[in-house]
Amino acid sequence: MLKPHSVTFADIEAAARRLAGVARRTPVFTSTTVDRLTNSQVFFKCENFQRAGAFKFRGAYNALSQLSAAQKQQGVITFSSGNHAQAIALAGQLLGVPATIVMPDDAPAVKLAATRGYGAEVILYQRQESKREELTQALAQERGLTIIPPYDHPQIVAGQGTAAKELIEEVGELDLLLVGCGGGGLLSGSAIAAKTLLPECKAIGVEPELADDATRSFHSRTLQTIERADTIADGARTPSLGRITFPLVLNYVDDMVTVSEAAIVRTMFLLWERLKIVVEPTGALAAAALLGGAVKAPGARIGVIISGGNVDLTRVGKIFGGYGA
Amino acid sequence: MLKPHSVTFADIEAAARRLAGVARRTPVFTSTTVDRLTNSQVFFKCENFQRAGAFKFRGAYNALSQLSAAQKQQGVITFSSGNHAQAIALAGQLLGVPATIVMPDDAPAVKLAATRGYGAEVILYQRQESKREELTQALAQERGLTIIPPYDHPQIVAGQGTAAKELIEEVGELDLLLVGCGGGGLLSGSAIAAKTLLPECKAIGVEPELADDATRSFHSRTLQTIERADTIADGARTPSLGRITFPLVLNYVDDMVTVSEAAIVRTMFLLWERLKIVVEPTGALAAAALLGGAVKAPGARIGVIISGGNVDLTRVGKIFGGYGA
Repeated sequence: MLKPHSVTFADIEAAARRLAGVARRTPVFTSTTVDRLTNSQVFFKCENFQRAGAFKFRGAYNALSQLSAAQKQQGVITFSSGNHAQAIALAGQLLGVPATIVMPDDAPAVKLAATRGYGAEVILYQRQESKREELTQALAQERGLTIIPPYDHPQIVAGQGTAAKELIEEVGELDLLLVGCGGGGLLSGSAIAAKTLLPECKAIGVEPELADDATRSFHSRTLQTIERADTIADGARTPSLGRITFPLVLNYVDDMVTVSEAAIVRTMFLLWERLKIVVEPTGALAAAALLGGAVKAPGARIGVIISGGNVDLTRVGKIFGGYGA
Repeated sequence: MLKPHSVTFADIEAAARRLAGVARRTPVFTSTTVDRLTNSQVFFKCENFQRAGAFKFRGAYNALSQLSAAQKQQGVITFSSGNHAQAIALAGQLLGVPATIVMPDDAPAVKLAATRGYGAEVILYQRQESKREELTQALAQERGLTIIPPYDHPQIVAGQGTAAKELIEEVGELDLLLVGCGGGGLLSGSAIAAKTLLPECKAIGVEPELADDATRSFHSRTLQTIERADTIADGARTPSLGRITFPLVLNYVDDMVTVSEAAIVRTMFLLWERLKIVVEPTGALAAAALLGGAVKAPGARIGVIISGGNVDLTRVGKIFGGYGA
């Protein structure tokens, strides 16, 4: 296992300098309804308003901008059917780095179109027949491309940590910082920023109950894996924390909690209805811990990272059909 | 007809002072996608993030805060099934003014609950059997309540004008300002602010094709009326401009255009999908004029007021069902 010093706050500060004027300094929202419901003061860092619709752009741009001139010219490759794909495609476009994205051939047409829209080459594979990691490795070798993984990479983690840094710079003291957890890139980056800037602030990771590998890894201090977790929070379906993110999570995160699928959807509904913001299921994880009652902290000042807003609007009817005040 | 001097920019400045620290100074959003699609630079003033979910809070609070002590104690009354109802209810709650809202008995349960949630007394009437204006008049007289109409009131107009004032203070020069139009309160207030602060800026009102009474009134200079307009933009179903707003619109607005129902829904979809903001159909009117092509201004700096975000999320599936990139 790597030492938990693979990423430091200095790396996050350097990432923030690279991202200045390129990434959006996303707004922090508050809600009197949420404050009343939770009996606390809540600050939502709205990364659903980040470029390409999620925090992922921060890490992607930070990583790509540090490649050598030769690497930039050759290009990069990654496998993702989610927000990392679009983030790498956009960062590649902005930096003039050719990007190749390996996606399953059953990925939603909207995501394929968005990724191609940023000028990336999309290579489709049949989910049943090929292993995407092997395919990516083979392509990388054949074409001399640099692989940019979705979370297990120090420069990705450092980039993701800039969102929490901005939040704290804007709102000051926090008692708690709640962050959703998939592969742990956003969570570990956020926790490093929080524990450095506000040593008394507790950093808490939030997972779906149905994808609680990181929570179990955290409590048992042994890496746990869940393949093909069936949660609506697609960004949290990653099988496990990574070689880099696991030790960072163990070292910097204070606790991990889980939320039910119903709490995720109810929270999404409340964020859309009251804050008037479009949040994807994974983006609602951290808020769901608070609004669903997994985390209770009356009187506290609480930071919540809304990680993304990429959701297929044509499916919203199905998701929200049964809801209403 | 009243002179168009019933509201001045000084009234808007005074309203802004009353609203400071009470109304939200809503954020201004930009979108590289929208700029590319329209070949212009667009600044969205997001009043969907205003308290109670729409710009209406500005006028309501401005009007209620100027009542005499006796009027405040007796209370206010209004008729509305829309955003004005919730705005008056919330402003009443904040100022300790009892609010009575006359609503049709088939108003959505969500809106009844929200209005009651702000502590207002809701009086239901049967849409077929009673005339709401007469009922409101009778109740006002019987109980000594002050009537606060939804738009045809100088203090309402002055309050609504503060959104455009904030937008211009934040972004500076604009070539065009696009504003949706129902009864003309937001439009006339915005036009007064724009023409005062930026005399070269053109203020343009936008209506649904199916509710084009104000557009026809503007071009014919004679008040036109449409009863029960069947547009999805429920805030634009008001039958006509008012005694106060019509002369203001004639005097300060440069042009009026209309948009189709399809353009309203397509624009709503784009704002949700790309800007990640929840906008109601009426809130998308001004943007629809630009994105639907009714207004073309290549190279221009364009302000667009997003007027509100109160939409029944359980109905979104029906609205967006046929859409997708």
